[in-house]
Amino acid sequence: MALPDRDPAVCSVRDVLGRVGDKWSLHVIYLLADGPMRFTDVKRQVEGISQRMLTVTVRGLERDGLVRRTVYPVVPPRVDYALTPLGLTLFDAVKHLMVWTQEHVHDIDRARRSYDARAAELA
Amino acid sequence: MALPDRDPAVCSVRDVLGRVGDKWSLHVIYLLADGPMRFTDVKRQVEGISQRMLTVTVRGLERDGLVRRTVYPVVPPRVDYALTPLGLTLFDAVKHLMVWTQEHVHDIDRARRSYDARAAELA
Repeated sequence: MALPDRDPAVCSVRDVLGRVGDKWSLHVIYLLADGPMRFTDVKRQVEGISQRMLTVTVRGLERDGLVRRTVYPVVPPRVDYALTPLGLTLFDAVKHLMVWTQEHVHDIDRARRSYDARAAELA
Repeated sequence: MALPDRDPAVCSVRDVLGRVGDKWSLHVIYLLADGPMRFTDVKRQVEGISQRMLTVTVRGLERDGLVRRTVYPVVPPRVDYALTPLGLTLFDAVKHLMVWTQEHVHDIDRARRSYDARAAELA
Protein backbone atom coordinates (compact mmCIF):
# COMPACT_ATOMS: atom_id res chain seq x y z
CA MET A 1 0.00 0.00 0.00
CA ALA A 2 1.52 3.30 -1.03
CA LEU A 3 1.22 6.34 1.14
CA PRO A 4 0.10 9.45 -0.68
CA ASP A 5 2.49 12.40 -0.85
CA ARG A 6 4.63 12.54 2.20
CA ASP A 7 4.12 16.12 3.27
CA PRO A 8 0.32 16.15 3.52
CA ALA A 9 0.63 12.84 5.35
CA VAL A 10 2.90 14.36 7.95
CA CYS A 11 0.51 17.25 8.36
CA SER A 12 -2.42 14.96 8.94
CA VAL A 13 -0.67 12.69 11.42
CA ARG A 14 -1.55 15.00 14.22
CA ASP A 15 -5.13 15.04 13.11
CA VAL A 16 -5.40 11.25 13.19
CA LEU A 17 -5.75 10.90 16.89
CA GLY A 18 -7.48 14.17 17.49
CA ARG A 19 -10.24 13.01 15.20
CA VAL A 20 -10.56 9.30 15.58
CA GLY A 21 -7.89 7.95 17.80
CA ASP A 22 -8.61 8.57 21.43
CA LYS A 23 -8.91 5.36 23.34
CA TRP A 24 -12.59 5.67 24.18
CA SER A 25 -13.59 6.39 20.58
CA LEU A 26 -11.65 3.39 19.34
CA HIS A 27 -13.26 1.19 21.93
CA VAL A 28 -16.77 2.34 21.00
CA ILE A 29 -16.08 1.90 17.29
CA TYR A 30 -14.81 -1.56 17.99
CA LEU A 31 -17.94 -2.53 19.91
CA LEU A 32 -20.32 -1.11 17.32
CA ALA A 33 -18.60 -3.05 14.54
CA ASP A 34 -20.77 -5.96 15.66
CA GLY A 35 -23.99 -4.04 15.15
CA PRO A 36 -26.13 -1.32 16.74
CA MET A 37 -26.11 -1.08 20.52
CA ARG A 38 -27.98 0.84 23.17
CA PHE A 39 -26.19 3.50 25.15
CA THR A 40 -26.49 1.49 28.36
CA ASP A 41 -25.01 -1.62 26.73
CA VAL A 42 -22.07 0.34 25.39
CA LYS A 43 -21.51 1.83 28.82
CA ARG A 44 -21.58 -1.58 30.44
CA GLN A 45 -19.00 -2.96 28.01
CA VAL A 46 -16.54 -0.06 28.08
CA GLU A 47 -15.11 -0.70 31.49
CA GLY A 48 -14.15 2.39 33.40
CA ILE A 49 -15.93 4.97 31.26
CA SER A 50 -18.19 7.47 33.00
CA GLN A 51 -21.66 8.33 31.74
CA ARG A 52 -20.48 11.82 30.89
CA MET A 53 -17.35 10.68 29.04
CA LEU A 54 -19.37 8.20 27.01
CA THR A 55 -21.86 10.94 26.13
CA VAL A 56 -19.03 13.19 24.98
CA THR A 57 -17.42 10.33 23.04
CA VAL A 58 -20.50 9.24 21.11
CA ARG A 59 -21.43 12.86 20.41
CA GLY A 60 -17.98 13.43 18.91
CA LEU A 61 -18.28 10.29 16.80
CA GLU A 62 -21.72 11.36 15.63
CA ARG A 63 -20.44 14.81 14.73
CA ASP A 64 -17.60 13.23 12.73
CA GLY A 65 -20.11 11.17 10.76
CA LEU A 66 -18.78 7.90 12.13
CA VAL A 67 -21.73 6.91 14.31
CA ARG A 68 -25.45 7.36 13.82
CA ARG A 69 -27.73 7.91 16.80
CA THR A 70 -31.34 6.77 16.63
CA VAL A 71 -33.89 7.72 19.27
CA TYR A 72 -36.99 5.55 19.58
CA PRO A 73 -40.01 7.40 21.01
CA VAL A 74 -40.81 4.88 23.71
CA VAL A 75 -40.95 5.22 27.48
CA PRO A 76 -38.28 5.24 28.73
CA PRO A 77 -36.65 6.56 25.52
CA ARG A 78 -34.47 4.03 23.78
CA VAL A 79 -31.33 5.29 22.05
CA ASP A 80 -29.32 3.15 19.66
CA TYR A 81 -25.89 3.82 18.25
CA ALA A 82 -24.58 2.28 15.03
CA LEU A 83 -21.56 2.73 12.80
CA THR A 84 -22.17 4.63 9.59
CA PRO A 85 -20.61 3.34 6.34
CA LEU A 86 -17.76 5.79 6.98
CA GLY A 87 -17.38 4.44 10.50
CA LEU A 88 -17.15 0.92 9.12
CA THR A 89 -14.25 1.85 6.85
CA LEU A 90 -12.51 3.37 9.86
CA PHE A 91 -13.01 0.15 11.77
CA ASP A 92 -11.23 -1.73 8.99
CA ALA A 93 -8.24 0.60 9.30
CA VAL A 94 -8.20 0.45 13.08
CA LYS A 95 -8.37 -3.34 13.07
CA HIS A 96 -4.80 -3.53 11.77
CA LEU A 97 -3.57 -1.55 14.75
CA MET A 98 -5.59 -3.64 17.17
CA VAL A 99 -4.40 -6.92 15.71
CA TRP A 100 -0.83 -5.65 15.83
CA THR A 101 -1.25 -4.77 19.49
CA GLN A 102 -2.67 -8.16 20.34
CA GLU A 103 0.13 -9.92 18.52
CA HIS A 104 2.92 -7.85 20.02
CA VAL A 105 1.77 -7.00 23.51
CA HIS A 106 4.16 -9.59 24.91
CA ASP A 107 7.07 -8.29 22.84
CA ILE A 108 6.45 -4.86 24.32
CA ASP A 109 6.22 -6.21 27.85
CA ARG A 110 9.48 -8.08 27.34
CA ALA A 111 11.19 -4.98 25.95
CA ARG A 112 9.99 -2.95 28.94
CA ARG A 113 11.26 -5.43 31.48
CA SER A 114 14.61 -5.55 29.74
CA TYR A 115 14.82 -1.74 29.55
CA ASP A 116 13.89 -1.35 33.21
CA ALA A 117 16.46 -3.96 34.24
CA ARG A 118 19.19 -2.11 32.34
CA ALA A 119 18.08 1.18 33.86
CA ALA A 120 18.22 -0.35 37.34
CA GLU A 121 21.77 -1.59 36.70
CA LEU A 122 22.87 1.90 35.73
CA ALA A 123 21.20 3.52 38.72
CA MET B 1 -8.31 -10.34 8.23
CA ALA B 2 -9.89 -12.08 11.17
CA LEU B 3 -9.67 -10.62 14.61
CA PRO B 4 -8.57 -13.02 17.31
CA ASP B 5 -11.00 -13.86 20.09
CA ARG B 6 -13.21 -10.96 20.85
CA ASP B 7 -12.80 -10.73 24.59
CA PRO B 8 -9.02 -10.39 24.78
CA ALA B 9 -9.28 -7.90 21.92
CA VAL B 10 -11.66 -5.73 23.89
CA CYS B 11 -9.36 -5.90 26.88
CA SER B 12 -6.39 -4.78 24.84
CA VAL B 13 -8.15 -1.92 23.09
CA ARG B 14 -7.40 0.36 25.96
CA ASP B 15 -3.78 -0.66 25.83
CA VAL B 16 -3.47 0.21 22.15
CA LEU B 17 -3.20 3.92 22.59
CA GLY B 18 -1.55 3.86 25.97
CA ARG B 19 1.28 1.91 24.43
CA VAL B 20 1.69 3.06 20.89
CA GLY B 21 -0.99 5.49 19.97
CA ASP B 22 -0.37 8.92 21.38
CA LYS B 23 -0.05 11.47 18.64
CA TRP B 24 3.60 12.29 19.23
CA SER B 25 4.66 8.64 19.20
CA LEU B 26 2.82 8.04 15.94
CA HIS B 27 4.42 11.06 14.38
CA VAL B 28 7.93 9.98 15.41
CA ILE B 29 7.34 6.42 14.18
CA TYR B 30 6.12 7.83 10.91
CA LEU B 31 9.25 9.97 10.45
CA LEU B 32 11.66 7.17 11.36
CA ALA B 33 10.05 4.84 8.83
CA ASP B 34 12.25 6.61 6.27
CA GLY B 35 15.43 5.77 8.14
CA PRO B 36 17.47 6.77 11.20
CA MET B 37 17.35 10.40 12.24
CA ARG B 38 19.11 12.62 14.73
CA PHE B 39 17.21 13.96 17.69
CA THR B 40 17.47 17.52 16.41
CA ASP B 41 16.12 16.57 12.99
CA VAL B 42 13.16 14.78 14.53
CA LYS B 43 12.49 17.80 16.69
CA ARG B 44 12.60 20.13 13.71
CA GLN B 45 10.10 17.99 11.77
CA VAL B 46 7.59 17.39 14.55
CA GLU B 47 6.08 20.83 14.61
CA GLY B 48 5.01 22.03 18.02
CA ILE B 49 6.79 19.41 20.13
CA SER B 50 8.94 20.62 23.01
CA GLN B 51 12.40 19.28 23.68
CA ARG B 52 11.17 17.70 26.88
CA MET B 53 8.12 16.07 25.29
CA LEU B 54 10.24 14.64 22.49
CA THR B 55 12.69 13.26 25.05
CA VAL B 56 9.83 11.60 26.93
CA THR B 57 8.35 10.27 23.67
CA VAL B 58 11.50 8.68 22.29
CA ARG B 59 12.36 7.25 25.70
CA GLY B 60 8.93 5.60 25.84
CA LEU B 61 9.36 4.21 22.34
CA GLU B 62 12.80 2.91 23.24
CA ARG B 63 11.46 1.27 26.38
CA ASP B 64 8.72 -0.40 24.34
CA GLY B 65 11.33 -1.85 21.99
CA LEU B 66 10.03 0.16 19.03
CA VAL B 67 12.94 2.55 18.61
CA ARG B 68 16.66 2.05 19.05
CA ARG B 69 18.86 4.88 20.29
CA THR B 70 22.49 5.02 19.24
CA VAL B 71 24.94 7.43 20.81
CA TYR B 72 28.10 8.24 18.85
CA PRO B 73 31.02 9.29 21.04
CA VAL B 74 31.84 12.48 19.21
CA VAL B 75 31.89 16.10 20.37
CA PRO B 76 29.19 17.28 20.56
CA PRO B 77 27.60 13.83 21.08
CA ARG B 78 25.54 12.62 18.17
CA VAL B 79 22.40 10.62 18.94
CA ASP B 80 20.49 8.72 16.28
CA TYR B 81 17.08 7.14 16.54
CA ALA B 82 15.88 4.30 14.32
CA LEU B 83 12.91 1.97 14.21
CA THR B 84 13.57 -1.57 15.40
CA PRO B 85 12.13 -4.49 13.40
CA LEU B 86 9.19 -4.44 15.85
CA GLY B 87 8.75 -0.72 15.25
CA LEU B 88 8.65 -1.33 11.52
CA THR B 89 5.79 -3.81 11.87
CA LEU B 90 3.94 -1.22 13.94
CA PHE B 91 4.47 1.34 11.22
CA ASP B 92 2.82 -1.02 8.73
CA ALA B 93 -0.23 -1.26 10.98
CA VAL B 94 -0.38 2.47 11.63
CA LYS B 95 -0.12 3.25 7.93
CA HIS B 96 -3.65 1.93 7.38
CA LEU B 97 -5.00 4.40 9.90
CA MET B 98 -3.03 7.25 8.40
CA VAL B 99 -4.10 6.48 4.86
CA TRP B 100 -7.69 6.25 6.05
CA THR B 101 -7.40 9.65 7.68
CA GLN B 102 -5.94 11.23 4.58
CA GLU B 103 -8.64 9.76 2.41
CA HIS B 104 -11.51 10.73 4.70
CA VAL B 105 -10.49 13.98 6.30
CA HIS B 106 -12.86 15.84 3.99
CA ASP B 107 -15.74 13.48 4.76
CA ILE B 108 -15.24 14.20 8.43
CA ASP B 109 -15.08 17.94 7.86
CA ARG B 110 -18.29 17.77 5.84
CA ALA B 111 -20.03 15.72 8.54
CA ARG B 112 -18.94 18.22 11.19
CA ARG B 113 -20.24 21.20 9.27
CA SER B 114 -23.54 19.45 8.69
CA TYR B 115 -23.82 18.45 12.37
CA ASP B 116 -23.00 21.96 13.55
CA ALA B 117 -25.55 23.45 11.14
CA ARG B 118 -28.27 21.13 12.47
CA ALA B 119 -27.30 21.94 16.04
CA ALA B 120 -27.52 25.66 15.26
CA GLU B 121 -31.00 25.19 13.81
CA LEU B 122 -32.15 23.47 16.98
CA ALA B 123 -30.62 26.10 19.25
